[in-house]
Amino acid sequence: MGWNVVGDTECSVAKTLAVVGDGWTMLIIRELFSRTRRFDEFLSRTGISSNLLTQRLNRLVDEGVVEKVLYQRLPARHEYRLTQKGLDLYPLIIALKQWGDRWCNVRKKFQPKLKHKTCGASMTPIIGLTCSSCGAPISPRDITLVRRSPPVPSITSRKGRRSMANRGNK
Amino acid sequence: MGWNVVGDTECSVAKTLAVVGDGWTMLIIRELFSRTRRFDEFLSRTGISSNLLTQRLNRLVDEGVVEKVLYQRLPARHEYRLTQKGLDLYPLIIALKQWGDRWCNVRKKFQPKLKHKTCGASMTPIIGLTCSSCGAPISPRDITLVRRSPPVPSITSRKGRRSMANRGNK
Repeated sequence: MGWNVVGDTECSVAKTLAVVGDGWTMLIIRELFSRTRRFDEFLSRTGISSNLLTQRLNRLVDEGVVEKVLYQRLPARHEYRLTQKGLDLYPLIIALKQWGDRWCNVRKKFQPKLKHKTCGASMTPIIGLTCSSCGAPISPRDITLVRRSPPVPSITSRKGRRSMANRGNK
Repeated sequence: MGWNVVGDTECSVAKTLAVVGDGWTMLIIRELFSRTRRFDEFLSRTGISSNLLTQRLNRLVDEGVVEKVLYQRLPARHEYRLTQKGLDLYPLIIALKQWGDRWCNVRKKFQPKLKHKTCGASMTPIIGLTCSSCGAPISPRDITLVRRSPPVPSITSRKGRRSMANRGNK
């Protein structure tokens, strides 16, 4: 199965990855949460090439994660902003950051500082996972998973296999 | 700048993406949290090709995210398990799942069911973000970011640029 059909599997993780499961895309999203708005700023702050940036931004606009807004008429200039769908990716960025803080040996003096506007303190967002039913904190060992169907469309049925093969040839 | 040097930037998000910022790798990690352990199970449950799977699993082992454990001697057979470093990726998987649940129109009847062992109920893990200083719930709009250095190594110094260029040619 090619990556292009992963988004067709009935799995929320796979469908999300089909939209943002690309390193450059996630770096662009990191920048959007850091108030980066303009094409040249994305270039200089991520190190991405301009053709890859165009491709990734267009995809994010098509997916409704980002909106492209005219901020100057003559000459026409656009900037990029997160939609609500994009803002909802915040826990994902924080999860990436929290893991890197713990495991990737980052020199703290170069990390951007975050301030909580409400309390005024320097801070780090902390992720907590709780059970939607009882509200208790959870870890992966507390959970049992019951599969209901194979997650891969290519192995669900003969018909499924044919239609995947056709898509792959497009 | 090529993707191969993104992990050299002094940013926790970028360093994490350099390890797991690849769609297939994240699907493999989803499977590891679903108790998938064996090579053939990864193949059938993700749809990845066997050479890509070998490459991704070896990388995860090299990074200490996964350990390869002998479970049968004759013939030698191995399985793959998350280390503590790998288990710490759980919030990332849940963040991907939560976003997909909200935005990706997944048919619920095919999604795996999760049960909380402690309370016994069917559940969804809920992500909460709080301030490390005052403990209040936070959203991206509550936070001010203060940059301390350019995040891209290639624009930090001439020396930095040269050493990056050399790495790229390896």
